[in-house]
Amino acid sequence: MLQIPALEKLVHELSRLPGIGPKTAQRLAYYVLRNPSEFAHRLSESLSQIHLQVHMCPQCFNYTDRDLCRYCEDSNRSNEILCVVEEPSDIVRIESSGVFRGRYHVLHGSIAPLDGIGPENLKIQELMQRVHRGLAQEPVALKEIVFALDSDLEGDTTILFLTKHLAKTGLRLSRIAQGIPMGSDIDYIDERTMGRAMENRVGL
Amino acid sequence: MLQIPALEKLVHELSRLPGIGPKTAQRLAYYVLRNPSEFAHRLSESLSQIHLQVHMCPQCFNYTDRDLCRYCEDSNRSNEILCVVEEPSDIVRIESSGVFRGRYHVLHGSIAPLDGIGPENLKIQELMQRVHRGLAQEPVALKEIVFALDSDLEGDTTILFLTKHLAKTGLRLSRIAQGIPMGSDIDYIDERTMGRAMENRVGL
Repeated sequence: MLQIPALEKLVHELSRLPGIGPKTAQRLAYYVLRNPSEFAHRLSESLSQIHLQVHMCPQCFNYTDRDLCRYCEDSNRSNEILCVVEEPSDIVRIESSGVFRGRYHVLHGSIAPLDGIGPENLKIQELMQRVHRGLAQEPVALKEIVFALDSDLEGDTTILFLTKHLAKTGLRLSRIAQGIPMGSDIDYIDERTMGRAMENRVGL
Repeated sequence: MLQIPALEKLVHELSRLPGIGPKTAQRLAYYVLRNPSEFAHRLSESLSQIHLQVHMCPQCFNYTDRDLCRYCEDSNRSNEILCVVEEPSDIVRIESSGVFRGRYHVLHGSIAPLDGIGPENLKIQELMQRVHRGLAQEPVALKEIVFALDSDLEGDTTILFLTKHLAKTGLRLSRIAQGIPMGSDIDYIDERTMGRAMENRVGL
């Protein structure tokens, strides 16, 4: 269509990014062409560096450019509570609330049988090993595991699977509260969220 | 915020693309990290190659990877009609209609005094030289210049400027029709478009 292989290749590669369709990819490629080559080179350079400099933390599987990630390294954080999340970006969201001061574990997804994603495709075995390693230490610090997974079928399935496998540990297991978002208008809340918010009402 | 310089740099560079805000850039960066490094490398490679392989056609200022672009090179196209467009991507749109078989000239923008873009920032001098060169040839092939510019204030300003400067050439000057889009519902047409469509009504 564009008849210029280098341009078509760039459009093709850009369109493989999530949420970028062929039309947007074409618009982005023309934007890159219209701008000085330094712009393309800086983006190219950071893309070529990203996998060289950033890897998974071997303990919690968050991304890091050090041996351990900053949350595993931080001696001021509590070892009593471990927060299980689906993606590294979820940690950023939780940290921005400033409420949680424990440790993290990133599953890198959730159990989704329809997409062919089972427990073996996630960092679940690593979570189990980490928990049992924690419980084998003297004195035992770990007391609670809180699941901060997406509030969807896959998140629920994953929590069900993990609670079943962690029940024997005797640890307190919890999940972040489901209810109406702050600042929301009751009129616009869907029935399932409202049902959950009502069931989980909090004493005043 | 992300505390990983290489990741923050990638997010920063991605967020400089049009329509990509900081949140989308972060999502894209995590997507790149989640995927095998080959994906990042292919995108990086095509970005580093784009300015090396693609340049402006010295005649019409469309993008090309050859000496002349395919529309300037194509001996089957008519030299009688020259279509002036704002951006190379506009050519793709016009070609997809299959109706136009003449030559192109890309201005690389439109006159926008509020954005500090004057005629000297566009390929207008080059257009004038090209037209006069065409008129100096024997026999003269060029008969018409059609403006396919955006239907906005800047497009109108540019057409006004160009018609004034091309009036003396005696060439037929035209612009693509303004009216209601094909398949559109009259109910949803804005008043200015409807006014123009009525003024420019076509005999049956």
